[in-house]
This record gives sequence, structure tokens and C-alpha cells, in this order.
Amino acid sequence: MKSYNIAILGASGAVGTQMLEVLLEKKLPVHELRLLTSERSAGKTIRMQDKTFTFEEATKDSFHNIDFVLSAAENDVAKRFIPLAVKEGAVVIDNSSAYRLDDDVPLVIPEVNPKAAFRHHGIIANPNCATIIALVALQPLHAYATLKRLVVSTYQAVSGAGIKGIQELNDQVEAIRSQQPIVTSAFPYQIAYNLIPQIGNFNEEGYAAEEMKMQNEGRKILNLPELAVNCTCVRVPVYRSHSESILAEFEKEIDPNTAKKLLEKGSGIQLMDDLENKRYPMPLDTSDQDLVYVGRLRKDLSLHKNALSLWCCGDQIRKGAATNAVQIMELLIQAESENKSEA
Amino acid sequence: MKSYNIAILGASGAVGTQMLEVLLEKKLPVHELRLLTSERSAGKTIRMQDKTFTFEEATKDSFHNIDFVLSAAENDVAKRFIPLAVKEGAVVIDNSSAYRLDDDVPLVIPEVNPKAAFRHHGIIANPNCATIIALVALQPLHAYATLKRLVVSTYQAVSGAGIKGIQELNDQVEAIRSQQPIVTSAFPYQIAYNLIPQIGNFNEEGYAAEEMKMQNEGRKILNLPELAVNCTCVRVPVYRSHSESILAEFEKEIDPNTAKKLLEKGSGIQLMDDLENKRYPMPLDTSDQDLVYVGRLRKDLSLHKNALSLWCCGDQIRKGAATNAVQIMELLIQAESENKSEA
Repeated sequence: MKSYNIAILGASGAVGTQMLEVLLEKKLPVHELRLLTSERSAGKTIRMQDKTFTFEEATKDSFHNIDFVLSAAENDVAKRFIPLAVKEGAVVIDNSSAYRLDDDVPLVIPEVNPKAAFRHHGIIANPNCATIIALVALQPLHAYATLKRLVVSTYQAVSGAGIKGIQELNDQVEAIRSQQPIVTSAFPYQIAYNLIPQIGNFNEEGYAAEEMKMQNEGRKILNLPELAVNCTCVRVPVYRSHSESILAEFEKEIDPNTAKKLLEKGSGIQLMDDLENKRYPMPLDTSDQDLVYVGRLRKDLSLHKNALSLWCCGDQIRKGAATNAVQIMELLIQAESENKSEA
Repeated sequence: MKSYNIAILGASGAVGTQMLEVLLEKKLPVHELRLLTSERSAGKTIRMQDKTFTFEEATKDSFHNIDFVLSAAENDVAKRFIPLAVKEGAVVIDNSSAYRLDDDVPLVIPEVNPKAAFRHHGIIANPNCATIIALVALQPLHAYATLKRLVVSTYQAVSGAGIKGIQELNDQVEAIRSQQPIVTSAFPYQIAYNLIPQIGNFNEEGYAAEEMKMQNEGRKILNLPELAVNCTCVRVPVYRSHSESILAEFEKEIDPNTAKKLLEKGSGIQLMDDLENKRYPMPLDTSDQDLVYVGRLRKDLSLHKNALSLWCCGDQIRKGAATNAVQIMELLIQAESENKSEA
């Protein structure tokens, strides 16, 4: 079996280290692995699955002979290095938002639009974490009844802002406990015991960047340019797993029992909806794993008979970022190996 | 000026002690004050505004010569004592849900439906906290454009479950810090660093009691029996102040600028909506005061041009419970004093 040279760009961050972990868990055929970081982290090591890996500085020469780049870098770093990697012949799966809406860059969730991955020109974009979690949950329902409108309120964990988000929540809880002043840096305000209804900058219409991603990326992934989306994104003092309260309106009626059956068979989904036993998804139970948990499924009590309400949670560092990127790479590797065995 | 004999039933709980505080702050004409509790708290004292008050056990004789009862007791205690108080001639303002939907019991938010208070037969009900906060925020918009449909996702503080909710969050944070086992009692699961999408018991359609209150109480307060409500209620690890993400659909179009002007003049509201300076309501900034803060006001980007999105926060122990009850009593006292001066 062919093995591949793989680079992780931004390898020392929350998503980058998770990409490494998922890669090792999945036992993909890796020949050479390069963990690329800024100069600051270069030379440092990381232990994972009883192995020690060393970070090296990303330079313009880092992508020579690389087959796949999993990029967990911020937009500016992504834009600096990704074109170089593509020029060297690598296929890049990019978790930043730099290329997501470009016409010639597929935006892929393997459970939702896997075929789009094969139409790439060197770059495949990994969608926004909250968007991935919502669309994995909705895909089986959309396939049956066609989505028309979404009203989404999110409850997003601090690790969406990376390791520094987790550290900031910890530091603030500790500061409050010892009556020390609160320091804010990853978030605009104190997040411990608080909520911040802003994720990203606001546009002129008063929507935050994260809220517009749900609309714009959702439309592209589902190939529904008219999909109506109303989204409110809120940071909550939870370490890991984003949660979302979703009202989904469909083109045709879909009753809750049918919906539950569809979700039970859905790809990447764990239906957890047993109200008698108080079973519903919660961030604590859905962290450190790859499924999107769906529950609280019920008929919309307001005007729209074609609508359902649901609540979903998913680990946004894994399925919302690292796992989704590695799954995309897996799709391409599988297809190549199938093509070879057919030839 | 006439002064009144007032009893607080359930006086030692989070809402009861807050009722006492609001009563003292407002300098209402109190002649005699009885702080009624269970046998367990009787004899204990509480310091407030440099005075010491002693709790006494609620008995069937506690309401003799009482003009107003502010009841912060649970439903079962409310049902046991309130009929006795009414029989003695007292007017009871009840914060439990026991009588809220009874036809002959007005359900009152002074900023929304003050006149209803005067149609009582001895009992006036104080609405559910999340419902009060939503409707105070929406009232100026409803007066202008008439509400038709609400989609609400709540972010509800632990103090909604009383003092034991606050204690449980504190204890769990401390247990996690010292790697001790987590104890749950006020909430069905760990609330520290978690979210629980259940407040109250579920009905057959899969809605929690708190979610149905938003619909049923909202319809009664606004006198809109057809008001369509889709609500999801979630407990969050915040001490105080409930927050709500609301999509409101109206009978006629209402643009965000008009809405902001209406909210600026709205009763009981603080508009906080200056995105350039990252100003929006957050639970930390809205606790320990009586206004409902409203921000993130924007046009619905999805199908409905008659719809607006907004985010609001309010202290659910004060405006969501104690303050609202005392305000209702104030309405009645004021009316009586005006009637007298006219006579």
C-alpha cells in the first residue's frame, strides 16, 4: 500500500495537535510526517501514542515532496504558506477561513458533500466548526425533506479560541477564587461565569463573522444558494464541545418519529433522545470523540408544520476541525487506492 | 400616608430575601413586616440595610391583618397558604406557577400589562422569570408592530434554581479543582463547565415545562392566544442573570433603527447596542439591578422581513421575580393612594 508524506501546518496549536492525534488513531499510511510551526515552537517536542515528535519551523522549503498538508494555521499564515505547498504539488486541507468561499476551493464535510472533495485544485477547505456540527446533525433530515431555513443559537466552548481560550477560563476561575484581578486576552470580556454574545467582528448589518459563516458556508456546502439562516453565536464557559439550539424548516413536512429514524441511521451522528431517562446531549459527554450528538428533537410548536427543533453537541476541535480535515484526506487516499486496485 | 402590613412567604430563599431587599430599597410604606418560612428557618435572622429581621414559621394564623403577601414559596407551599391569606383579606402576589394560568388570576408584568393587576380576586401571579425578561424586552416592539411568532433559546443562570443552584456550581468548581467527586442535587447533571438542555419536566411533545411557560404565559400576558412560540431552555454555568437569543416576527415590518428608538424609550429597558465599541448585554453586567438589557438588535437575514433578532439579559432574581412582584404591589398601593387623594 502506498504511504504518504504529510505535513501539519500550525502543528503546535489546539487543532494542530488534535490533527496529529487523529492521524495516529486512524493509522493512516504515513511515510514521513512534518510538524510545522512558527519559529517560536520549532525544536520543541510533543509526546503522543508513546512516540515523541519534534516541531520544525515552517519555511518556503517545508513542502518539498509533501503529498498532503493539514493546515491548522490562522488565515495570514495559511495565505503565506498554502500557495507554496500547492506549487510543490501538495494537496492542502485548510482549516482557516482564508479560502472557504473561493469558487475553485471545495468546502467539504465528508458526511454531507464528500464528492466535492474530488473537484479540488490543490486546496480543500475545512468548514467552520459550528457549521460542521450543525450540518452533520441536519444532513439526514435535509436529504429527506430539503432544508429551507435555519434559526440557530450557539453555545460555543472556549477551546474554539484555541489553547489560550482554555487557559483564560482556568486563569479567571482561579483569579475569582483568590480575589485577584481578572485578565482578559483571548476574549473581549471575562468568560468565567459569563456569556459573550460576540464571536468574530461585526458587519454593517450587526452580524458577527461566526454568524455569517453559518449562512455562507452552509449555502455552499449544501449547494443551496437560497438557504435562509438566522444565527446568533455566543461564547459560554465550557471547555470543549459546541452546542447548538436549532429550528430547522424544511420544504416538506417531516414528523419527529421519521426524523429520529433518519438520525439513527445518519452518518457521524449519535442520536441521544430519551427524555424519560433525561438523556440528551451535553458538552461534557460529547467531548474527546468524533460524533455529533443530537437530541431534544421535537415538532415546532410555532407556525411552521414543516419545522423541527433540535439540540446538538459536538467536539469542535475534533469533528469541528481536526477530524473533519483528516477525514477529507482519508477520502482522497481511499479513492486513490481504489483507483489503483481497479487499474 | 397609609402604611401596610406585608408578609413575605418563603422569605429565606433566594427570591424571598431579594423581595425583602427590594421592599426596603423602594421605601414602600410598610407598617408591619412578617418574614414567613418553614419551621426549619424560623427563629433565624437576616441583616439587611443595617436592620436585623427574624424569620417566623408560616402557619394558618400568619395572615391575620396582612394587606399584601409576597409569595416566593414553591407551588405546594403556595397552594397550602395562599387560599388562607386570601380568606383573611390579603392580596397575594405569587411567584410560583401554581395559579398563573387560572382564568381569574391576572398574570402581570407592570411594564407590559399593568391594568390587568386591578382585575384580581385576591391573587395576582408573577410570571416565569425567562418570560418576564423576554416580554419586557419585546413590549415596545410589540406595541408598535404586534408580535406574531417568537423563536427563543435561553441561557439560564444557576440561581434560577435558588441558593442551592449557586452553591452547587461553586461546590462543583471546587471539586474539579481538588479532583474530588462531583455531587449533583439541584441539577440533574454537573453544571460546572457544562450545559443542561432541560429546565423542568418534559411533556409528551418533548417540551420542557420552562419552554411551555414562555408560550402559555406569553399568550396570557400579551392577550395573544395565537402567539406562536418555539422555545429551548438551557441551564448555563453563570451565577445570575438569564440571557435570551430571540427571533421575533411581527405583523408588520419594523426596521432596526425604529426598533432601537422604541427600545431607548421603553419602560424597564436599557438599550446596550454599540457594536463598534463591543457593547452588548452580558450576564455579568446585568446582575443585581432591575433593568432588562437589550442589544445585538438586527434584521432577520432569513425569510421574514417582519422579523428582528435580539439578545437580552436580565437579573432573574430581581426583575425576573422579586422586583416584578414588588412592582405589582406598588401599582396597587399607588392606585389606592391616588383614589384617596381624588376622594
